[in-house]
Amino acid sequence: MIKVDVEKRIQDENDRIAAQNRKAFAEAGVLVLNIISSPGSGKTTLLESTLDRIGGEMNVLVIEGDVSTERDMDRVRARGAEGIQINTGGGCHLSAGMIAEVLGGLDLESADVVFIENVGNLICPSTYDLGEDVRMVLLSTTEGDDKPMKYPAIFVEASLAILNKTDLLEHLQFDIEKVAGEIEVLNPGCQILRLSALRGDGMDAWIDWIRAKIAEKKGNS
Amino acid sequence: MIKVDVEKRIQDENDRIAAQNRKAFAEAGVLVLNIISSPGSGKTTLLESTLDRIGGEMNVLVIEGDVSTERDMDRVRARGAEGIQINTGGGCHLSAGMIAEVLGGLDLESADVVFIENVGNLICPSTYDLGEDVRMVLLSTTEGDDKPMKYPAIFVEASLAILNKTDLLEHLQFDIEKVAGEIEVLNPGCQILRLSALRGDGMDAWIDWIRAKIAEKKGNS
Repeated sequence: MIKVDVEKRIQDENDRIAAQNRKAFAEAGVLVLNIISSPGSGKTTLLESTLDRIGGEMNVLVIEGDVSTERDMDRVRARGAEGIQINTGGGCHLSAGMIAEVLGGLDLESADVVFIENVGNLICPSTYDLGEDVRMVLLSTTEGDDKPMKYPAIFVEASLAILNKTDLLEHLQFDIEKVAGEIEVLNPGCQILRLSALRGDGMDAWIDWIRAKIAEKKGNS
Repeated sequence: MIKVDVEKRIQDENDRIAAQNRKAFAEAGVLVLNIISSPGSGKTTLLESTLDRIGGEMNVLVIEGDVSTERDMDRVRARGAEGIQINTGGGCHLSAGMIAEVLGGLDLESADVVFIENVGNLICPSTYDLGEDVRMVLLSTTEGDDKPMKYPAIFVEASLAILNKTDLLEHLQFDIEKVAGEIEVLNPGCQILRLSALRGDGMDAWIDWIRAKIAEKKGNS
């Protein structure tokens, strides 16, 4: 009982801080994406591939969430992105409070888009609002085509689902239509993009999606 | 502060029940393995492939942990295993209490080995003792070779690490020696097996490992 009370209190406090973050992002007119997936689904590779395509055209900030190490931040810095690494020290998701603590160190006013790479986990980050505009989920083809129904929360919460590692489809037993169908059942109208961040297939549609979202955000601010 | 107190109390209570589970497993003389990995690393496929090899030779029980669905239990039942599905309803790991609740429904006395497939999560299950003999981690080659240092807790806690999906190595940028080296740094002496549960490579060494552990357990009971 006390556990439930504490969890409710933590969620309420998170929502309060997330609203403050959302206000700060809106004032800066910057698009913010919260990227969630299992470990190894290709979140950082997607960011690298994205930076290669839009790094010269727009200002990108990255907030990297990890249990340990700065490995992901080193990778996106090598592609020219600025940003901040958050280590949760064992915690299985980012929280709005962790984001609020680092916002002072980021030049939001000059940025067009902030990518928040959450901790690699398909469960815990699902329900923690960080103040983002879009919560999105990555699922890679190597994880098996039974995942949406087995981990429903994030597929219900996300407004964009990316099916990554399509370059490996020919070597796998993975029914991509079945996955798309399960996502549609869980979350009718959820947008689904199919791509290979490593090989580049489908990246143009993703970049177009980002450009359109940024234009929409700037129009509103 | 109250959050820390509650977490400590939950862990203490878990340890108390885990000790009871361990006593029940010891009295039955049954080997118990707690299998932990990210979603889609191949835990259920490993169980299917294992059941195909030892199902006729020994009595196997399976406890399946999932956020939602009975899909994994259906798969191992189709290979002849008996067992029980636990749905955590959003919870990111099994606990000793969840295991204790289902033990009454399992014929431990007749069993040689119990496989507990934990919830697909590389973080939360790491520190929850279920009363098992061996905590083991699966990492698949498709998850990238940077994972042990990024998710250190489970690689520190496990006494067996399985590197799965070696059949896909030729299509990936995955340095298996680097991964083995990182595990050795985190957990010197941790046993490491390399296999493809799907294609069968390396399965003999895993089956031999299970047979030896069962013999060891029966010798002690």
